[in-house]
Amino acid sequence: MLPVDPARFLEDLHALRRFGAAGVGKGVSRPGFSEADIAARDWLATRISEAGLRPHFDPVGSLFGLAEGRSLLMGSHSDSQPEGGWLDGALGVIAALEVARAAQEAGGPPVSVVSFEDEEGRFGVTTGSSVWAGNQTLEGADALHDPQGLSFAEARARFGARRQGFVDPTRFSGYVEMHIEQGPVLDTTGEKLGVVEAIVGIRDMHVTLTGQQNHAGTTPMHLRRDAFQALSAFNTALAERFANVVTPQTVWTIGHVALHPNAPSIVPGRARFSVQWRDGDAERLDRMETIIRDTLAEIATAHCMELGFGPMLGLDPVAMDAGLRSALEAAAEAEAPGRWRVMPSGALHDATNVARLMPVSMLFVPSIGGISHDFAEDTDEADLVTGLNTLARTVTALG
Amino acid sequence: MLPVDPARFLEDLHALRRFGAAGVGKGVSRPGFSEADIAARDWLATRISEAGLRPHFDPVGSLFGLAEGRSLLMGSHSDSQPEGGWLDGALGVIAALEVARAAQEAGGPPVSVVSFEDEEGRFGVTTGSSVWAGNQTLEGADALHDPQGLSFAEARARFGARRQGFVDPTRFSGYVEMHIEQGPVLDTTGEKLGVVEAIVGIRDMHVTLTGQQNHAGTTPMHLRRDAFQALSAFNTALAERFANVVTPQTVWTIGHVALHPNAPSIVPGRARFSVQWRDGDAERLDRMETIIRDTLAEIATAHCMELGFGPMLGLDPVAMDAGLRSALEAAAEAEAPGRWRVMPSGALHDATNVARLMPVSMLFVPSIGGISHDFAEDTDEADLVTGLNTLARTVTALG
Repeated sequence: MLPVDPARFLEDLHALRRFGAAGVGKGVSRPGFSEADIAARDWLATRISEAGLRPHFDPVGSLFGLAEGRSLLMGSHSDSQPEGGWLDGALGVIAALEVARAAQEAGGPPVSVVSFEDEEGRFGVTTGSSVWAGNQTLEGADALHDPQGLSFAEARARFGARRQGFVDPTRFSGYVEMHIEQGPVLDTTGEKLGVVEAIVGIRDMHVTLTGQQNHAGTTPMHLRRDAFQALSAFNTALAERFANVVTPQTVWTIGHVALHPNAPSIVPGRARFSVQWRDGDAERLDRMETIIRDTLAEIATAHCMELGFGPMLGLDPVAMDAGLRSALEAAAEAEAPGRWRVMPSGALHDATNVARLMPVSMLFVPSIGGISHDFAEDTDEADLVTGLNTLARTVTALG
Repeated sequence: MLPVDPARFLEDLHALRRFGAAGVGKGVSRPGFSEADIAARDWLATRISEAGLRPHFDPVGSLFGLAEGRSLLMGSHSDSQPEGGWLDGALGVIAALEVARAAQEAGGPPVSVVSFEDEEGRFGVTTGSSVWAGNQTLEGADALHDPQGLSFAEARARFGARRQGFVDPTRFSGYVEMHIEQGPVLDTTGEKLGVVEAIVGIRDMHVTLTGQQNHAGTTPMHLRRDAFQALSAFNTALAERFANVVTPQTVWTIGHVALHPNAPSIVPGRARFSVQWRDGDAERLDRMETIIRDTLAEIATAHCMELGFGPMLGLDPVAMDAGLRSALEAAAEAEAPGRWRVMPSGALHDATNVARLMPVSMLFVPSIGGISHDFAEDTDEADLVTGLNTLARTVTALG
C-alpha cells in the first residue's frame, strides 16, 4: 500500500482551515472567488509543486495538480459555504494531495489532484466542474450573477494571469472523490465508511395554489378558498400516496412556503411552495412526479384553487463506476472490516458532472451528528485517517 | 317615520368618495391622518354645521356632530384602508348625517353623529374609539407608531387648533352603527339587512415550532424533525378536534406562516405561524384555546419539536343591547319583510369600544361578492337606501 503520511495529511488539512477561518469552532467562510478562497488556492498550488505535481488553474479557477502521463484524478473542492465547515470539499482535496504526493514519492502509480471552483454554487450549482464537463457553456456561466450582482465573468477574472486553458479530460483514467457524508447515517450506525452506489437524482418543482384572499372574521369556513388549507391537504395526501412507492432512501421536502398576503387576519389567497424529491432511480422519480401532479390537480379541484407551475429542475441519478466502486469496497473492508456500507449520496457533488467525462466513484466518512453547511461540521480525525488509508489502498490496488 | 332624503344621502356619500379617490373603480385611499382624511373631515364638519349640529373634533381627530341635550349617537368612521372601498365606515357616517339632519328638520328626536379616527388601525386597532372609550390611554396611544415610524402624537397634531376636549359620553343614550357586512352571507342568501346580535370575540396566538434544520438530500425521512410537517399535522388534527365544538359561525385561520430558512433544498428547522379564532361565545373561545394548546403539545412531542408561544391577543365578544336590537329588528322587518337576518359581526367595529360607554347596536347591508378592504368593494345603491330607511324607522320608534 502507498505509504501515505496521516500526520502530514492532517497538518495540511488544518493549514487549509486557516484560510477564511471563521473564529467559531473549526468553521470557515471561504466562498468561491473570495480573497480567502484565492489565497487558499495559491497556497495549495505551492503544496502541489512541492509534491512534484504541476499546478494548473483552468479558466474558471479550478486548480489541478497534474501528474505526468495518464493518471487517476482525485479531489473535490476547496471553496466553502458562507457559513461552512472545515471538511466539506477540503477533505477530498487534501486527501488527494497526500495520496498523489505519496505516489510521487513511491514512484507511482500516477495520481493527479483537483480542487474545483464554486462547488457550493455562489453562481449556480457545482459551477466549476459543470463548465469543465460541458454541462453548461463558459459563455452561459459568464452571464450568471451571485446574490450581490457580481457576474461569473467578473469573479473568474480575479484569477488574472494564473489562468491557463481547460485541462484535457482524456489524460485521466477515472475520478475518485472522498467527501464527508453530510448526513446522519454513518454517525447513527457507528460505521466508518460509505461506498457510494449512486448520486441520487433530483426533481424540484415550484407550485402556486391560488384561491381567494378574504377577511378572516367575516368569511364563513364553508365559503373559504384558503390556499394554506389546500397546501396542508396536499402535503397530507402526498405522504399517504407515496407510502407504497418510496424506499427508505427516498426523500421529499416542502422547504419553501410563501403565503399571500401572509397576515393573521386574512384568509390566505395564494400559496407558493417548493416540492423537491430525490431518489437513486430515475423511474421512481418519474412515478413520484406523476403522483405529485395528480394529487395537486385533485386538491386544486376539491379546494376551488387555480394551480400553476414554475420552472422545474431535473437532474438524473448518476451511477458510480463498477470497477472503481469494487476497488473502494475491497479497501473499505480491509480498513474497517464489517463497519462500512454501500449507500446513495443524497447530496450533489462535483462527481455528478465529472461522470460525463470519465468513470467516477465516491467514498464517504461520517459527519458527527450529520451536521454540515454549518460552522459546527466535524468528523473524528481517526475517521479522516481511515478514509485516507482507504484511498491509498484503492490506488495501490488499481495500480 | 323621519323624512330622510335618499338622493341627498347618496350625493353626500359620493361627495365623500372624492376625498382620496383612488382612480380605480369607486376605491379610495384615505388612511387616518392623511391629507385626504383631514380634508374629508373638514368637509364633513361643514356639512354637520349646515345640518344644524355642532361640529367637535376631539383630541385624536374623531369628529362629532352634536345635537343639543341628550341624544342618540350614530356613526362609524371616515378613514379608509390604504387600498380601501368607498363604503367601509363612510356609509355609517353619511347615513348618520342624513338621519340627524332629517331629525333636525323634523324637530326631533335629537340625533348626534360621529366619525371616529383611525378605525382601520394605522396606529393599532380602532384607535380613535378605543381612546375615547378608555380601552387605552391617550399617553399609551401617543407612543404608537405607524409602519413608517410616524408617532400617533405627531399624527394627531396635524389636526392643530381644530381639537377640543373629549366629548362626555353620558350625553348619549346609545350608539347605532350601520356598516357594510364585509362578508358574503347576505350577498349569498339574497337578504337585504343583518341585525347584529354580537361582535365576535377574537383570540390570536403566535406559535413557534422548532425542529432541526437539515440537508434535504442527505437526511432520511425517519431522522427528520421537519417544522413544516409538524405545522401541517397540527393543522389537520385541529380541524378534526374542532368539529364537535364549533358552530357554523365559528371561524379559525392560519394566515401567517414563516419557515426558516425557507429554501427548497433545506428541511425547515423552524415554523412560526399565527392561529386566530373568532366566535360570539367567550366560553367556546376558551374551549378552542384549550384544544389548540393540547394539540400543539401532542404534535410537538410526536415530531420532536420545541414549542414556543408569542404574545396572545384576546378580545371578548360584545353583545348588542337588547332594546336597540329589537328596534332594529322591527324596522328591518318593515323595510325588508322576510329578507333580513340576525347575525354575528365577524369583524371588529368602533361599536366594540363604544359598548364600554353606552348601549350599542349594529345594522349590516350586503357586500357584493363579500369583498371589502379592496378598491372593488361595493353595495347596490338600493340596498344602501334600505339601510338608511331602516335607521330612520328605528330612530322614530325609539323616539
